[in-house]
Amino acid sequence: MPPQVDLSRFSTGQFDRGAGPLKEGVWLLVSRLLFQLCPVSLSAIKCAVLRCFGASVGHAVVIKPGVKITFPWKLTIGNHVWLGEECWLLNLAPITIGDNVCISQRAFLCTGNHDYKSPTFDLITKTIRVEQGAWVGAGGFVGPGISVGSHAVLTAGSVATKDLKAYWIYQGNPAVPVKERVIARS
Amino acid sequence: MPPQVDLSRFSTGQFDRGAGPLKEGVWLLVSRLLFQLCPVSLSAIKCAVLRCFGASVGHAVVIKPGVKITFPWKLTIGNHVWLGEECWLLNLAPITIGDNVCISQRAFLCTGNHDYKSPTFDLITKTIRVEQGAWVGAGGFVGPGISVGSHAVLTAGSVATKDLKAYWIYQGNPAVPVKERVIARS
Amino acid sequence: MPPQVDLSRFSTGQFDRGAGPLKEGVWLLVSRLLFQLCPVSLSAIKCAVLRCFGASVGHAVVIKPGVKITFPWKLTIGNHVWLGEECWLLNLAPITIGDNVCISQRAFLCTGNHDYKSPTFDLITKTIRVEQGAWVGAGGFVGPGISVGSHAVLTAGSVATKDLKAYWIYQGNPAVPVKERVIARS
Repeated sequence: MPPQVDLSRFSTGQFDRGAGPLKEGVWLLVSRLLFQLCPVSLSAIKCAVLRCFGASVGHAVVIKPGVKITFPWKLTIGNHVWLGEECWLLNLAPITIGDNVCISQRAFLCTGNHDYKSPTFDLITKTIRVEQGAWVGAGGFVGPGISVGSHAVLTAGSVATKDLKAYWIYQGNPAVPVKERVIARS
Repeated sequence: MPPQVDLSRFSTGQFDRGAGPLKEGVWLLVSRLLFQLCPVSLSAIKCAVLRCFGASVGHAVVIKPGVKITFPWKLTIGNHVWLGEECWLLNLAPITIGDNVCISQRAFLCTGNHDYKSPTFDLITKTIRVEQGAWVGAGGFVGPGISVGSHAVLTAGSVATKDLKAYWIYQGNPAVPVKERVIARS
Repeated sequence: MPPQVDLSRFSTGQFDRGAGPLKEGVWLLVSRLLFQLCPVSLSAIKCAVLRCFGASVGHAVVIKPGVKITFPWKLTIGNHVWLGEECWLLNLAPITIGDNVCISQRAFLCTGNHDYKSPTFDLITKTIRVEQGAWVGAGGFVGPGISVGSHAVLTAGSVATKDLKAYWIYQGNPAVPVKERVIARS
């Protein structure tokens, strides 16, 4: 009989949540009230709150209703970034977002994984980096450890399982490069 | 160096929200309370409220809990239509739904796009039309400008990036036609 | 002209909700407050509540915030099972989950379907079975009637439209087997 998974033996190992239970508990409450339930954006207030919890957030960042950020203290966001409704930054490991990035509605950036070859299903977390000018389309999924290159595009509903090259457009599940992104000189 | 996106120069251009801030603000509040938080359907009440905000809604329309409609004043729904739990009609441009249509759970109809070739990432909105008898399956995604033909089917989790022909079944990401929909004579 | 769908003639036929309106109404309220809105897990309390509503739930089951279970009285969960944030067990027909299973964030197990060949769009519900040690990745979709074999893996964002063989890893939309899952002896 092949080996089996035994989740009773699971431990998060070296994983560091990055904050104590009090801080995390208060964040969960604030997140539910201000980020999940509030029907209007209030971006400036949200950005200020994120900074209080340890995030690095640039100026003119737009945070729409329903945005979910797991650990603000593992978040770095540049200037002129948009976080669309119901997008989720599941940043067990750090997520870094450059300037002029758009993360569209219901997109999901997920830094968490498990070692499916281990009977203890060990937690694996890997940083996600979204470089300047990139666009993660509505309902797009970006997996652990992925770098979304400068001005890359992940089209709506697509699933990024590998790094996305700068100035390329990716589509599908798993996402593959479909064409170059040529931006007009202004 | 190639041109870059600069979201500080973004403007919504000719885009018309279709309602003033007061009307939109009241709608956001009503939507959160009645459409998002209420655990029971109350379809008749929801339909009446949508009509108050300018929607055209037929009779016997079922609206399950958690349905999200961005702008009721840009919505036209026929008779005997079902909107499933957590489906989202993101209708920056009009969405028109014919009679006897089923939009299943967590489906996402998205009229918004951006010009990824422009350094100012201009907003592009395009009407979505779902014709009579069509079915958008659970978790399906319908992009801007798409027409879902009469009695077409988008299978669960599939992503429509092109028009769907009448009486055809589409699957995958991007969705492709897989077989004809043959409906029995009753 | 080909036959058309007429949802005014729809009926759920032999479908048995498995509980009366009072029980279902109370469950909807409890679900909204404890499962959807509560920002902390409180897994032990959730498991106790599910058992009160007729679910069979093993020990050491983790139920994160935002988990949605449609009918607790049609749910069987083994020991050491994890239900991730915003996953949805849409169990119009029974869902059975074995020991040591992980259902990740935003995964969607959907037992409901419709007969698209019938003008009355009849409801079809089929049991989903997830066997021990399996893993449904984040944002994964499992359709009606699917059996996820022992220790099978559905990767993030993938759509299972056929049974998943034991100890195989599936990816894509529709999901196809990509490699065998070899678990190390501990």
